[in-house]
Amino acid sequence: MPSSARDNKFPMKPKLLSRMGRRTAAPPISWLIHASLSRPKLISLAAGFTDNATLPTAVSRQLLNALLRSPKTGRPALQYGITAGEPGLRRLTAQHLQKLDGVDGAGNSHSPECVLITGGSQQLLYLTLEALCDEGDIVLVEDPTYFVFLSILQSRGLKARGVKLDRDGLDLVHLEKVLAALKESGELRRVKALYLVSYFQNPTGATTSLNKKAAALRLLKKFERAAGHPLYLLEDAAYRELRFVGADVRSALTLPGAAARVIYTGTYSKPFATGIRVGFGLLPEPLFTAVQRIKGNHDFGTANLLQHLLARALASGLYDRHVARLKKRYAQKARVMELALAEHFPPNVEIWEPAGGLYFWARLPKNISAGKKSKLFQAALQNDVLYVPGELCYADDASRRKPANEMRLSYGSASEKNIRTGIRRLGAVLRQFIP
Amino acid sequence: MPSSARDNKFPMKPKLLSRMGRRTAAPPISWLIHASLSRPKLISLAAGFTDNATLPTAVSRQLLNALLRSPKTGRPALQYGITAGEPGLRRLTAQHLQKLDGVDGAGNSHSPECVLITGGSQQLLYLTLEALCDEGDIVLVEDPTYFVFLSILQSRGLKARGVKLDRDGLDLVHLEKVLAALKESGELRRVKALYLVSYFQNPTGATTSLNKKAAALRLLKKFERAAGHPLYLLEDAAYRELRFVGADVRSALTLPGAAARVIYTGTYSKPFATGIRVGFGLLPEPLFTAVQRIKGNHDFGTANLLQHLLARALASGLYDRHVARLKKRYAQKARVMELALAEHFPPNVEIWEPAGGLYFWARLPKNISAGKKSKLFQAALQNDVLYVPGELCYADDASRRKPANEMRLSYGSASEKNIRTGIRRLGAVLRQFIP
Repeated sequence: MPSSARDNKFPMKPKLLSRMGRRTAAPPISWLIHASLSRPKLISLAAGFTDNATLPTAVSRQLLNALLRSPKTGRPALQYGITAGEPGLRRLTAQHLQKLDGVDGAGNSHSPECVLITGGSQQLLYLTLEALCDEGDIVLVEDPTYFVFLSILQSRGLKARGVKLDRDGLDLVHLEKVLAALKESGELRRVKALYLVSYFQNPTGATTSLNKKAAALRLLKKFERAAGHPLYLLEDAAYRELRFVGADVRSALTLPGAAARVIYTGTYSKPFATGIRVGFGLLPEPLFTAVQRIKGNHDFGTANLLQHLLARALASGLYDRHVARLKKRYAQKARVMELALAEHFPPNVEIWEPAGGLYFWARLPKNISAGKKSKLFQAALQNDVLYVPGELCYADDASRRKPANEMRLSYGSASEKNIRTGIRRLGAVLRQFIP
Repeated sequence: MPSSARDNKFPMKPKLLSRMGRRTAAPPISWLIHASLSRPKLISLAAGFTDNATLPTAVSRQLLNALLRSPKTGRPALQYGITAGEPGLRRLTAQHLQKLDGVDGAGNSHSPECVLITGGSQQLLYLTLEALCDEGDIVLVEDPTYFVFLSILQSRGLKARGVKLDRDGLDLVHLEKVLAALKESGELRRVKALYLVSYFQNPTGATTSLNKKAAALRLLKKFERAAGHPLYLLEDAAYRELRFVGADVRSALTLPGAAARVIYTGTYSKPFATGIRVGFGLLPEPLFTAVQRIKGNHDFGTANLLQHLLARALASGLYDRHVARLKKRYAQKARVMELALAEHFPPNVEIWEPAGGLYFWARLPKNISAGKKSKLFQAALQNDVLYVPGELCYADDASRRKPANEMRLSYGSASEKNIRTGIRRLGAVLRQFIP
């Protein structure tokens, strides 16, 4: 996820670049890494990396060995494939989602024909925005939301409008208010989609219920006439399979009208291995065709070797077994962080505990800034602990002030010991700033 | 490289898509595949696939086994990396090019700092055009050129101007004429780059000498003042390592001024395995930073597993050994095609024999159409042999008529027997059309 240290000034001035080239900002993560350089004892609770110790080295080795043992299976994996993805993996992905969603058979929304395999779900998000949005168009996002999605919007000259987020997901009253205000101002015709990180959201850990997703889809539908075109629900389920408390929530693909209006994106990177980078999307037409064509221009298809590897992992059951192991691991690490937070954080810090995924969300009292230029952030760094300032996850949206009193805390990559130490260090810093 | 059969109409009408979404055409290759469906006996001399029998299944298995054997080396390969690419692979890539170019040490143009690892060189081309060109900008291309590059231009609303190509590469007199005409018409300020597939070009097999590249770079420099910005030489060296006759030509990176004006792109896909899909670019600043940032939004970096695999292949010498084997194989297959062409094609068909790469170029008498709607193409298909109509490789450029009397013939994926049979069938068809 991070970028190299060579990243520097923004915006870039030289006329030789395109508008996009000049406009595209350095990713916030490269600033975080830069801030943390030359601190060898630093504990990062910032990185969205996954747990190193659980990475499936043995399983991957076993699967690749079997795959490459015979030319009959090995050669197709080392040859070009087709742009939409390896047919077996598309089928298995559709089946996987049918199982997760508890639906019988493919239906219109869960058909392998709708599945496009991409280089992580990140690429699917990029391609979808290319196919859907012109410069100046608007995407509704949760407030706060996934910061790399905001980077894509920024780079492509798209606008974001934030919709409030509660601990139980999207604030529907506010969604209606935002849509009505956009209609009022004449901007609704620039709105193309609502982007929802619906499971253990990055950065807050919040999950949006199926009822809320249904209500959001109905609201979008209601405003379509005024918009003059479809308003899509873009559901990003990157963390869905990493649930360790409670039962799975069905996806928006199961809702009435989903086959025409829901774009669903998921990934095998987070639940299996981030170094393998295979994601997928399910898209209604004509978006599917447009996105597929654009992907053809990007790379004519995700590396076949990775796709064959994942198809084998899914078909053999080793994928499911790995995910089960991973969930236990994250449950344990989340529990460690929860206990450390209870012990070391001041009681007036509001903690959102996740039921899955990789993140806790901490809200300090409103007058305390945890932003990237804050004394608190600097003090944390001096004390060798790094977090993601919550403000980085808020869209540039002039209709409200960006909160600066929040932090994203990840238990993904840090060891249990480092989670404890990191939270203790951070707690001590907070106690200096919070009365 | 091909697309799924789901691809259909173009342009797409629905207002819900972006301009890019509506504009992006189905790739020509999907039309070729569609044309060839339901012909089980078809011999394809069209596919740019690489030779199946030489795909390095055993070598890849051995390298992956070693890589994933210990968590110490396996885990970093299964974890996220950094956007610019795995540092070891960037270093090895820089060294690899230093060796190919016969330069001592890194210099400014061959530094690992300039290397960006991408999902095939295709992705590098896409990212570079994003960072460099706004809608309506112009890229100079060889006439004919790589058709997927033309697809990117078409999709992104960019214009192409063709520069004539001789058997020995770019026509410099015509390049100057085109630049002068663009200056005259006031369009020079929209020109951003000259795209050159400089080694065993796709589709013609032609190679441009270092002297010609130097002269082209000087010409671009000469017109920079009138353009008001740098004019880049974008050298696509995808086929460079697949040379089987004669000595390698140094790249444009070795030319004076290259460090500021040459973008070089290469790939490990074609010389190693197309299912592994790792390419690279060397870019001058500020392009490097802009492209890296945009890649961060695409996918935050190419799959680490593939990068570690290739780094091991390069470091162990197994990559070089594989390439040596591959070159022998293609030399043999090219020889088979050459003999078959001599035996079966009418003598008034001009054949361009390649010194490397994957393609022969055949020019029929000027009045004979081999285009996609031609009777000749249909007759070939009826006789179960497929070629790429040359006209697909010509840019939409109103300043000249598209030639339709050419065909690209690939010996990449067909077996020796099928090369012989395919050329014999095609020769018989040609004799019906050519007096």
